Amino acid sequence: MKEVEIEIVTIGDEILGGFIENTNTSYLSKELTKRGYKVNRHLSLPDDRKALQEGLREALNRSTLVITTGGLGPTVDDLTREIAATLFASDFRFDEAIARDLKRRFGNVFVSLQDQATVPTKAHVIPNEVGTAPALIFDKRLILLPGVPNEMRTFFKQNIVPFLEENYPISRTEAQKELHFCFLSESAIDLQLRDLVKKYPDVAVGIYPSPGTATVRLKAINSSALASFAEDLKSAFATHLIPSPQLEAVLLEVFRERKLTLALAESCTGGMMAEKITSQPGASSYFLGSLVVYANGCKQKWLGVSESSLKEKGAVSKEVVTEMLEGLFQATDADYGVAVSGIAGPTGGTPEKPVGTVWAALGKRGEVPDVWTFCMQLNREAILLLTTNRLFAALYRKIVFGIPGGS
Amino acid sequence: MKEVEIEIVTIGDEILGGFIENTNTSYLSKELTKRGYKVNRHLSLPDDRKALQEGLREALNRSTLVITTGGLGPTVDDLTREIAATLFASDFRFDEAIARDLKRRFGNVFVSLQDQATVPTKAHVIPNEVGTAPALIFDKRLILLPGVPNEMRTFFKQNIVPFLEENYPISRTEAQKELHFCFLSESAIDLQLRDLVKKYPDVAVGIYPSPGTATVRLKAINSSALASFAEDLKSAFATHLIPSPQLEAVLLEVFRERKLTLALAESCTGGMMAEKITSQPGASSYFLGSLVVYANGCKQKWLGVSESSLKEKGAVSKEVVTEMLEGLFQATDADYGVAVSGIAGPTGGTPEKPVGTVWAALGKRGEVPDVWTFCMQLNREAILLLTTNRLFAALYRKIVFGIPGGS
Repeated sequence: MKEVEIEIVTIGDEILGGFIENTNTSYLSKELTKRGYKVNRHLSLPDDRKALQEGLREALNRSTLVITTGGLGPTVDDLTREIAATLFASDFRFDEAIARDLKRRFGNVFVSLQDQATVPTKAHVIPNEVGTAPALIFDKRLILLPGVPNEMRTFFKQNIVPFLEENYPISRTEAQKELHFCFLSESAIDLQLRDLVKKYPDVAVGIYPSPGTATVRLKAINSSALASFAEDLKSAFATHLIPSPQLEAVLLEVFRERKLTLALAESCTGGMMAEKITSQPGASSYFLGSLVVYANGCKQKWLGVSESSLKEKGAVSKEVVTEMLEGLFQATDADYGVAVSGIAGPTGGTPEKPVGTVWAALGKRGEVPDVWTFCMQLNREAILLLTTNRLFAALYRKIVFGIPGGS
Repeated sequence: MKEVEIEIVTIGDEILGGFIENTNTSYLSKELTKRGYKVNRHLSLPDDRKALQEGLREALNRSTLVITTGGLGPTVDDLTREIAATLFASDFRFDEAIARDLKRRFGNVFVSLQDQATVPTKAHVIPNEVGTAPALIFDKRLILLPGVPNEMRTFFKQNIVPFLEENYPISRTEAQKELHFCFLSESAIDLQLRDLVKKYPDVAVGIYPSPGTATVRLKAINSSALASFAEDLKSAFATHLIPSPQLEAVLLEVFRERKLTLALAESCTGGMMAEKITSQPGASSYFLGSLVVYANGCKQKWLGVSESSLKEKGAVSKEVVTEMLEGLFQATDADYGVAVSGIAGPTGGTPEKPVGTVWAALGKRGEVPDVWTFCMQLNREAILLLTTNRLFAALYRKIVFGIPGGS
């Protein structure tokens, strides 16, 4: 059987003009690759009838399966549906069920109802639970998804993955395994992998780093070699192993299982830690809240940080994060607490405390907290994300392995 | 003269596998568009000889100018240079000047010296001041740039922009204009645009919606028609106009200019509002902090919300957000405050208060606050993002236009 080759086509002038990032393409590529599919081309086309028609026709001639995003909305520049219908010689029909659903969710005022409920007769239609434009599948070869990222992702997870598994099953002759690590540099893992690759030459290996974590992906026909490789790698880095690279999901499980609670005192992270934690459904089972103390006045008033520490040691200091954590335990009845203060930049750095300097305090109620510092030479966005992930990983390692924060 | 059409081709398995973000394409698109060039296609190709050869040949047949990034390194999977040379029937030569420069910067240990200094005879060669691979231009029609983002950007700014200005001067600059709106549905804007397109048929128009905002982009040769179109559209939706779709950047400007301060009390948004606000460098000039009161205990302890309101009206109620905002003004000296509580789902909804129900209170210290409710039938992620953006937009409209929150 010929390998399935998938082409991803994103549609819209806003992408070609560089006005928006093409996150749909990278999301789909990552998700398809992870599941063993081969993506052979990315293509972005403008909202232009001729270019779209040519581009889609070529893609269909070239690839086994074409997935498009964008151009399905109700407005004048949305052409994808119409052009796909032409390519598959399809008429249109009015779908009563979709119209009813849109009316229920958006009311009679929804002017584009007629348009969004008008679908090609030859397409398999999947209703949109999030937005308005339904997804369409032509001849099991062309999948049209809306361009709004979370609508696209919902369709992909709920409908396209099952579609692929049914129509384009991956013949799993190769065994695969993923291991996830935290608090380990790519080069530390790489050194270990070089030894293991010599020991198990039949195992193919890749490292995929993310801020604060790294994933190692192993592939082999010989599944016992793969299992031994994985065991050796696990025992080399036992206390760095995490069940998933999504640390906020890991924390939810750990806290829920142990019936523990958590509260935060965030300065530099500005709410990012709380935002990530509460992005998980069920976070209310363990997460009490966060005091986002961006201004020093809030550090004093909400957490009782002393004016002398702020003046003499500065907001980014051992003393201040220690007092923030003490204040946090007084302000809540949380079992665990994390306090953080740092210089996210681009301004505010000094020779002693350059941009990227962070102080953190992490502890269990009634115990002596771990207080430590670290520094990253990155931009603002990356500093905040890496700080958040490092503190999540430190919290995980403290609870699960008893390892003090920062070590 | 035919309009110059530029195609951007990025090369590498790591892009198609989704292992790295394709930042080169978005950078080049943005920079070219800004200078008045039209990008007609994006293409990403794998490190595969046949696919690369076909893809590049097609691109050269289709577009005036093709810019590639990637595949110029010294390793076996770097094929771009060789394939381009084949397409232009070019031999290779050893470039002494490039070899000397590489030796000077990297020393004799540089194993790929021979390879990186071997260049196609028919190409214009531009030495790489940052890394190793020189940029190549064939026949003023194909530009090969390295894939490392900062090398690529350096070449673009220092060499490609002057090349374009000399060889592809922009003759007839099309006028462009973007207008951004909040609290307006795509279909409401679309209705208005349909009328305006009839009135000004020479103006091309596109709508780009994001959660809570929408951008309208206008293009025309006739700049006075464009200006009139924009004025008509502005006056149709005067109090929905925002200076940028990035509301956290808009708020920073508004608060900084007026020397006002802001504090938040977030329940359902779980820190997302604070996180977005503090993603902006300089946020500390107006943002004091956020009380992320996820648990009811925090609502009571930190904000003084009464147990009776929580019990009798529920955490998502007019009474509770009103008390949250009162408590926030007591806990800070902020000029403006926003309090929000809602049901983000997927569980926790009831027939009276379904998932997606939000109550918000917004006000200025010492004034009667605006308290209102809204409901969205979306998933958790989208509910939180839309809530955040709607509240940012409401805050902007209250301060700038004096419009009460929720109207």
